Amino acid sequence: MDSPAPHHRRILWAISEAGPLSRTEISEMAGVSKAAVTGAVKELIAQGLLHETDSIRGAGRPATLIAFSSGSCLFAGLSLRPDRSRLVLCDAVGDIMGTADLPSMRTPESIPPLLDSAIKKLARDTGFDPDKVMGVGISVSGVVNAEQDTCVRSTLMGWENVPLGKMAADYLGLPVHIENDANALAMREKLFGAASEAASFALIDIDDGIGGAVFIGRNLFRGFAGGAGEVAHITVTPGGIPCQCGKRGCLDTISSLRAMKLAAGRANLKETDFDALEAAAAQGDPAAVEILHAAGDALGSIVAQIVQMLNPERVLIRLSAERCNGLFAAVMQQTVDANVLPQMRNRTRIDVAKTPFGAHAAGAASIATHRFLLAPPSQERTS
Amino acid sequence: MDSPAPHHRRILWAISEAGPLSRTEISEMAGVSKAAVTGAVKELIAQGLLHETDSIRGAGRPATLIAFSSGSCLFAGLSLRPDRSRLVLCDAVGDIMGTADLPSMRTPESIPPLLDSAIKKLARDTGFDPDKVMGVGISVSGVVNAEQDTCVRSTLMGWENVPLGKMAADYLGLPVHIENDANALAMREKLFGAASEAASFALIDIDDGIGGAVFIGRNLFRGFAGGAGEVAHITVTPGGIPCQCGKRGCLDTISSLRAMKLAAGRANLKETDFDALEAAAAQGDPAAVEILHAAGDALGSIVAQIVQMLNPERVLIRLSAERCNGLFAAVMQQTVDANVLPQMRNRTRIDVAKTPFGAHAAGAASIATHRFLLAPPSQERTS
Repeated sequence: MDSPAPHHRRILWAISEAGPLSRTEISEMAGVSKAAVTGAVKELIAQGLLHETDSIRGAGRPATLIAFSSGSCLFAGLSLRPDRSRLVLCDAVGDIMGTADLPSMRTPESIPPLLDSAIKKLARDTGFDPDKVMGVGISVSGVVNAEQDTCVRSTLMGWENVPLGKMAADYLGLPVHIENDANALAMREKLFGAASEAASFALIDIDDGIGGAVFIGRNLFRGFAGGAGEVAHITVTPGGIPCQCGKRGCLDTISSLRAMKLAAGRANLKETDFDALEAAAAQGDPAAVEILHAAGDALGSIVAQIVQMLNPERVLIRLSAERCNGLFAAVMQQTVDANVLPQMRNRTRIDVAKTPFGAHAAGAASIATHRFLLAPPSQERTS
Repeated sequence: MDSPAPHHRRILWAISEAGPLSRTEISEMAGVSKAAVTGAVKELIAQGLLHETDSIRGAGRPATLIAFSSGSCLFAGLSLRPDRSRLVLCDAVGDIMGTADLPSMRTPESIPPLLDSAIKKLARDTGFDPDKVMGVGISVSGVVNAEQDTCVRSTLMGWENVPLGKMAADYLGLPVHIENDANALAMREKLFGAASEAASFALIDIDDGIGGAVFIGRNLFRGFAGGAGEVAHITVTPGGIPCQCGKRGCLDTISSLRAMKLAAGRANLKETDFDALEAAAAQGDPAAVEILHAAGDALGSIVAQIVQMLNPERVLIRLSAERCNGLFAAVMQQTVDANVLPQMRNRTRIDVAKTPFGAHAAGAASIATHRFLLAPPSQERTS
């Protein structure tokens, strides 16, 4: 199916945003005339995307509401990591219909055929017609040119200027969009998650490495060269630990899960992963306390800068670990409080939560959803 | 005169943006039908805002272009400082028609009558009818609620929650808008200055204190609580020099003109202003070199963070001094280069230039111009 016409898009957007709506409500919300809504809804029902549902709301008479047909359109999301890939299928309102773990795919040429068969298999395994997949998102660590759907550079994958979007779109016969990992997570938080109401937010993705995204209004803010949100390589400790980027003392060298693991190894701790460090710190282990303190303090100093610079409504910190609200988070918050203007303290809500299972792949799917439903490409760039 | 109707605004905006245009070009640029353009232009000519001008462009036949009538509408800008105030009158394309230095105005109640008579006097002195003034902007150091035209807090002026916009608007019978100093400078750079083509930029205003602004697309980015751009109070040296904000080691304590002057005094330098420091450093004076190096390095570390975080197209540093491209600027650029990802180096153009005479007041006038011509208030908020 082709991407819907602008009126259709706005109608789908309104329902995606607000849930089932009456035709009058759609007309108001989408800014489309009642007559045009009636015609377009008829077509979208005929295409199987929408259906009518009766509902009694409040004390009024029953209204016919228009809702998405479950599974009428699906979006696939692929998260690529050097050591693993994960695929999800989501419906138009972001619910995850199915998940599959795929092998590592480091060779760009190998991805389109593997992705094609994996999407078809996952759709069938979960009881859906593969033809219902309307678009695909692929998330990858690194700098992405979202307009050209090209991975400009991914140190982790060892890629430079890989036009994976076009390669995969040609093979699959579907729109395929490439996005940076953290941007994909942020898109899902905006469309279907914690940030749906926030006028602006920053997201920091703490995983083996660190990613960052900035969301302003209804759009990712990409900056001039697609590099907005690159918090990982802000210098925290001038002359500090060498970073793989070639600089020293970057946030990534202190507050990433990889950095904490390395520090734990240097301190000869038996268990070196983040959750073990939090557990050890809770028992008073001085080395674990020191590592988590340094990592939380470095992150807090960057979050404070984000608050001072952008004054976003929210900062979401997403951690690929279980113990999200231990010493690391507490020190982070203390450092933020100590480093923002007194009157800005507590104005920006900061929360630390676990990155849900499959979140990057689901984020990638939400990029495809966003492109399909919400924003014509010409409106997508903030800059 | 009332604020123009939406069609009229879009037509004025198109001419303000592109210079004299034919009716057909206005129609295309403003997205208004040719017939509506013809009608609206007729009204705007009758009001004296626009006039027809003949022009031969290229090899074609002469076209009738529509242009702003010089002095047909004026905007006043008032810059408030504790020790001085400055008033300017600008025309619709930002040219400064007249400037007046006014005494310090620290008592909010004293401002409306003083401003009223000063605007009238300045208009007459420069040969304009005071009735041509369509709006007034007031810039002040501190946090401003631009929607309510209230100064939320200005440490310099000793103000808290001063609804100066309404107070002055009631007295003058004109729209009066309050804006933060650096935001006002940034607006002028966007409408009429170096940043008119930039999709996004950050501005840092280095004066006695430091101000900052973020511009994304066609709008100032104000953040959640109006605090976006508050770079002055980003911590640069944890535990460093106490800052008047109550924290320590803020950028303002190292890189503001006041901070450099204080450091020069502590080093027993004879001349302590910025230009004297640059002159002494050029002669190899070690104390001057050290002060400028520290200040440039601290500023550079913040600019690097802005580049990493926002990846803006440009960073404009505006310095209230003459010697803008000495050691201070060189060290700043070096620190930026050392602290951004190698591939982001030189992607964001950073320039340091002198803050022109009367720039804050002219910036305030541009806020009034922007409100009058360019953006209906409902479209003005980015967040």
